[in-house]
Amino acid sequence: MVQDGAQQSQESSDRGAKLPGMFSKYKSSVEQELYRVVPSAEDSEAYRLLRYHLGWVDQQGSAMETLVSQGKALRPTLCLFACDALTNDYSKALPAAAALELIHNFSLIHDDIQDEDVERRHQPTVWHLWGIPKAISAGNAMQCTGDLALLDVAGKEVAPELVLRVSGIMTESYLEMIQGQCMDLDFESRTDIKAEDYLSMIACKTGALIRCALEIGALLATEDEATVRAFAKFGDCLGQTFQIRDDYLGIWGDEAALGKSTGSDIRRRKKSYPVVFALERASGRAMDDLLRIYGQEELEEDDVQRVLAVLDEVGSQEHSQRFTEAAAARALEALKPVSLPQWAQTEAEELVDFLARREY
Amino acid sequence: MVQDGAQQSQESSDRGAKLPGMFSKYKSSVEQELYRVVPSAEDSEAYRLLRYHLGWVDQQGSAMETLVSQGKALRPTLCLFACDALTNDYSKALPAAAALELIHNFSLIHDDIQDEDVERRHQPTVWHLWGIPKAISAGNAMQCTGDLALLDVAGKEVAPELVLRVSGIMTESYLEMIQGQCMDLDFESRTDIKAEDYLSMIACKTGALIRCALEIGALLATEDEATVRAFAKFGDCLGQTFQIRDDYLGIWGDEAALGKSTGSDIRRRKKSYPVVFALERASGRAMDDLLRIYGQEELEEDDVQRVLAVLDEVGSQEHSQRFTEAAAARALEALKPVSLPQWAQTEAEELVDFLARREY
Repeated sequence: MVQDGAQQSQESSDRGAKLPGMFSKYKSSVEQELYRVVPSAEDSEAYRLLRYHLGWVDQQGSAMETLVSQGKALRPTLCLFACDALTNDYSKALPAAAALELIHNFSLIHDDIQDEDVERRHQPTVWHLWGIPKAISAGNAMQCTGDLALLDVAGKEVAPELVLRVSGIMTESYLEMIQGQCMDLDFESRTDIKAEDYLSMIACKTGALIRCALEIGALLATEDEATVRAFAKFGDCLGQTFQIRDDYLGIWGDEAALGKSTGSDIRRRKKSYPVVFALERASGRAMDDLLRIYGQEELEEDDVQRVLAVLDEVGSQEHSQRFTEAAAARALEALKPVSLPQWAQTEAEELVDFLARREY
Repeated sequence: MVQDGAQQSQESSDRGAKLPGMFSKYKSSVEQELYRVVPSAEDSEAYRLLRYHLGWVDQQGSAMETLVSQGKALRPTLCLFACDALTNDYSKALPAAAALELIHNFSLIHDDIQDEDVERRHQPTVWHLWGIPKAISAGNAMQCTGDLALLDVAGKEVAPELVLRVSGIMTESYLEMIQGQCMDLDFESRTDIKAEDYLSMIACKTGALIRCALEIGALLATEDEATVRAFAKFGDCLGQTFQIRDDYLGIWGDEAALGKSTGSDIRRRKKSYPVVFALERASGRAMDDLLRIYGQEELEEDDVQRVLAVLDEVGSQEHSQRFTEAAAARALEALKPVSLPQWAQTEAEELVDFLARREY
């Protein structure tokens, strides 16, 4: 059964692992807008940490000699895509795109403190280098810089009323994201989490900002509320697709592609979707072992192997991937009422395919 | 010399320690607006921590049986006062007043983590009760709630353009506040801080939000840019007055009035203004002792007494209070070009007097 799941995933990855065209289409525009809105390090110590986290400078504040991975910029890409798909022009959405990337990175800086992660994208994390107090402030500065970046939408011939609405949506979304993070922290000490609770949590923690990206992108392009709602719904489903696939990769992902070892989320006792599913489904000896292992402070290699075996037993791998693919199908369904140009329709399909089947 | 300083301060306090009328005038309006904008704890775990920090509920989330001290609400009071002084109506500024209090409290929750403070207003701090990860998120939720509260200005018949301007000023101000916090963290490991550096730091860390409060209050009342600038300058000077007096109280304050012991800022190795002044002025043996003591990880009671003696030697107490009074005078000077009704002029004078000579 698990074999099937793994095999299916392998086949899917051959089809869907390619980064869709929209990522390269908007990449340099997003970068330029970010360079424009993030002040130079001379203005304040905080910006040095912020530029380091963004992968622009090394620990000493010098420009990176070799470019480090800076992430996929998923949220800004989605925002620009929504605007572009509806008006064939994405310039109005550039400030929002930069804001989304900064808000997302603010959450990463704080998440790394909260999860005690010492590495991100193969680099030491901000708190690990500069300590928790400075990392808290660097995260806060990142968030403020994002808020200020968003207000630049006002310079793009967008009516002040609309700028205010966009600003409200953005703030509400990242408040949801923060609430999701609180729920996630709360889950750490619990073993009675239902799949439903978990899905509510990721709808906030991951989903809110992804939905916001598409909603704002659409809102800057059209006054048609049904279209905006369709993009928002598309975003909700994409968030689920993205996160459950992320959870899958955190356990069964390829070491080389991800830069972390198989089972790493189990080693960190993360209660991701496949584990929550197992905690709902397992019984008898398997359940006893799960509860015992997730009650420990630290996991041995034996424990990791035992958890993997229990996940196997209950069919967690296959179930997780099926769930991802169902969310992906709902995403495309949500966009159906919107009449998109052919290029945009194709891009949307490639995007969904990628998020559901990516290997990294 | 120090005797003089202490005596002068004693006389001053007899004149100026009474809380000015504006604090009681706006108190219940500020509270009501805060109750309106802060969601109930049922909506999210984060709000429970936030309501606890605000002094509304106890650790279990039940309403407080005995009211705890909730602070003076200085920033909202200043904001409402500016609006009221110029139009005899402060209702337009209520959302901004609530936002200022929430943003200020967001900074306090994070400051307590950064400074490892276990008590605030005689209550255990949020991080001390719930741990650093949850306290980071509670602070972030507080800040977002503040941002959302501010957007309610739009419901007060304020033009969208003005709401956007107010929102930009608020965000820029608390970005300055965060930068000030970064500078302060940086100062911890340094003994070469000049008074000038220190004043730049507090202009950001404390001054920015106080200036913002008065600037926004004025801006919601008048289109006259000179008046708005005058209130902003008033705020800059008030920030200095407030902080240097705070520094004074942190060393020579009355134990009973403050709820912390004399010399407490020295015990915590805080490089507040009187210490920075001494680090600039001391020489010979006194300087050697200061450098040695501030280079230690922990201070013994002997060290505290020695620092107090050095501050005595260089006249730090008298100088600090003189500096505060000079800033207070500049504050009133800044307001002179604005023609205020008599009641407002009197209130402004009482406020300045209070901030310069308060005992708590």
